Amino acid sequence: MGVMSYILEKRPKRLIYLDHSASTPIDSRVLKAMMPFLAEQYGNPSGLHSQARALASALDRARTEVAEVLGCKPKEVIFTSCGTESDNLAIRGIAFSAARAGKGQHIITSACEHHAVSHTIKHLCEHFGFQQTVVPVDRYGLIDPADVKRAIRSDTVLISVIYANNEIGTIQPLAEIGEIGRQLGIPVHTDAVQAGGYLDLNVDRLRVDLLSLSGHKFYAPKGVGVLYVREGIPLLPQQTGGGHEGGRRAGTENVPYIVGLATALKLAQDIRSVENGRLIQLRDRLIRGVQAALPDAQLTGHPTQRLPHHASFVIPGVDASTLLMHLDLAGICAASGSACNTGMSEPSSILLAMGIPPQLALGALRLTLGRSTTMDDIETVLEVLPTIVERLRTTHPNE
Amino acid sequence: MGVMSYILEKRPKRLIYLDHSASTPIDSRVLKAMMPFLAEQYGNPSGLHSQARALASALDRARTEVAEVLGCKPKEVIFTSCGTESDNLAIRGIAFSAARAGKGQHIITSACEHHAVSHTIKHLCEHFGFQQTVVPVDRYGLIDPADVKRAIRSDTVLISVIYANNEIGTIQPLAEIGEIGRQLGIPVHTDAVQAGGYLDLNVDRLRVDLLSLSGHKFYAPKGVGVLYVREGIPLLPQQTGGGHEGGRRAGTENVPYIVGLATALKLAQDIRSVENGRLIQLRDRLIRGVQAALPDAQLTGHPTQRLPHHASFVIPGVDASTLLMHLDLAGICAASGSACNTGMSEPSSILLAMGIPPQLALGALRLTLGRSTTMDDIETVLEVLPTIVERLRTTHPNE
Repeated sequence: MGVMSYILEKRPKRLIYLDHSASTPIDSRVLKAMMPFLAEQYGNPSGLHSQARALASALDRARTEVAEVLGCKPKEVIFTSCGTESDNLAIRGIAFSAARAGKGQHIITSACEHHAVSHTIKHLCEHFGFQQTVVPVDRYGLIDPADVKRAIRSDTVLISVIYANNEIGTIQPLAEIGEIGRQLGIPVHTDAVQAGGYLDLNVDRLRVDLLSLSGHKFYAPKGVGVLYVREGIPLLPQQTGGGHEGGRRAGTENVPYIVGLATALKLAQDIRSVENGRLIQLRDRLIRGVQAALPDAQLTGHPTQRLPHHASFVIPGVDASTLLMHLDLAGICAASGSACNTGMSEPSSILLAMGIPPQLALGALRLTLGRSTTMDDIETVLEVLPTIVERLRTTHPNE
Repeated sequence: MGVMSYILEKRPKRLIYLDHSASTPIDSRVLKAMMPFLAEQYGNPSGLHSQARALASALDRARTEVAEVLGCKPKEVIFTSCGTESDNLAIRGIAFSAARAGKGQHIITSACEHHAVSHTIKHLCEHFGFQQTVVPVDRYGLIDPADVKRAIRSDTVLISVIYANNEIGTIQPLAEIGEIGRQLGIPVHTDAVQAGGYLDLNVDRLRVDLLSLSGHKFYAPKGVGVLYVREGIPLLPQQTGGGHEGGRRAGTENVPYIVGLATALKLAQDIRSVENGRLIQLRDRLIRGVQAALPDAQLTGHPTQRLPHHASFVIPGVDASTLLMHLDLAGICAASGSACNTGMSEPSSILLAMGIPPQLALGALRLTLGRSTTMDDIETVLEVLPTIVERLRTTHPNE
């Protein structure tokens, strides 16, 4: 029996979506909160009439709700069009502001950042004369705060480190890194896009000055984000025009999505202690099951200091794209690493930075669980995945 | 009888929304096209599985639909988060690219641009060493193409002129200006945000190299835009990360809104010859009626070369904010000028550039019609507006 016929026979009755780190469905409660602003309320929140005021009030409420989760002031919350915009505004906004004030052009970041951070800093270095120090990560993808401290120079203007990594799920010692920045007066930014739905987001406990979030990672729509900027941190706007968002981000506000983001963030934070427990149980069953069935599969990222919904592996002798295609035919949606990185034949720079050999890194598999995931789904994956891997190794022995 | 009691007595049964240049409601046909991507389809279009592919296909279709309206190639269409982002990406992207290639730092623009253009060019001048020439406008807000030609220097890298103005409705001789840029090899950008739903958008007929659109000006949602960039025009990305939008605009694509924008743009263009005729009839009745009832009210912008849905005036002896408040109480949503500019006590720079005295410019009123506007609405406005103006002049004689 070939791989295909096996797959079609074993195809589960419902789609098993294990790509929640790439994007989540919009929660029905979130969509319900958004619908009045799509179907009934309209106008421009900057206007001077009743329609406009209703939208401006909804914006105010959403901003206050987000601020409550972050433990900050409403005016420290900037709504953006996505996590990538938040990262860009944070990094470019701080970098250009500091450079123009003559403070320097040196940025510290880590070897396990999302491209929205790493490519943006690279862009500043290539086109605008900035310099960067990339601190390494250990075999679990962890940053050593001492490395950050050692990297600081007199012209360092920004430290940007990820809170929890998208490809490997590792959670960084963010508060320790934040404390280093705080003591030396260097702004600390974190890409908290993957952490948003699962971890503590209190900016004082995390000791960060800028924090990026993306709605569609926690059951709000794709196309809305947040950048928290601590009061007093100078930020040169990157999108100018009207005076929206306190003059820091021009553009008519996307009220439906902003309302959705605020609703989704509050919901995710309200249920996270219970939901995280449930996800960890499923995740650990998945990790143990994969390791039992495929003893040479290696868990990537930290075994315990990782996102509750996140399981990632490298599997020897398997090409990730081929594996994903066969999982898809079997009704299982999975990923190799960052969704923003698919279709590329290069191994992940993050896996390489952790010391994983390039050939092995091409066999990366990421399974990220969500609210709809059940133990039955996990058991189905544990039945289907090892069989596909074994058959691929037989039929595609060179990959 | 005071103003308030008169207003409450005369309040129309339904809301009369005459602020379509600020924002339009989402058309029900547009919302219908969007709903599957809000309620059913999810995932990240960059993924490698069935859910992702369905979204990627929807994106492709939307891009092709927009390209058909613009008469361009699909790959020349960049989806953005709003018209302001489109303007920023066009201007910053061209300016930084040209400056880094040593071509120069001079930008030509006009005295009647939206802040998304004028403030962005000002920002480049203040913070990044660029220089601008602002060509004047005549008393109708019209640019003379000969002035653009005269402003060109050897270091000019961009011409950015608005297609149709938001405050005064005047339509510029864009193709003539585009031809000047084309002959000298200087990229021409136009902010077509207000024109999007009403005028011809064929980029070859308009002779432009970059064109900005915003969804919520033509019955799509707030929070999605388009930037057309002609193939071969070098553009430095302003938002970096994943390789979305051909490497020119990173960030997970807002599929529901992009589908909505494409649907709305096609719809607006399909019905525009009929709908424009209807709007012009209503608009001209409104203009004639206001001028008959308030002989000292002055139409701003060009009397005929103006957007079909757009009527704008300056009314002596009236403060715009007070007038808008009273119109709102009477159930009429109107604006003074740009929604992005409300609440400011300064007179509009565009009205000043047209030679209107500052005191008179503070009495600006903009009434912009839409698909739901009826002749009854217009007659109601013509009954209510003159009475409010007369009473305000009596009760607030100093304004």
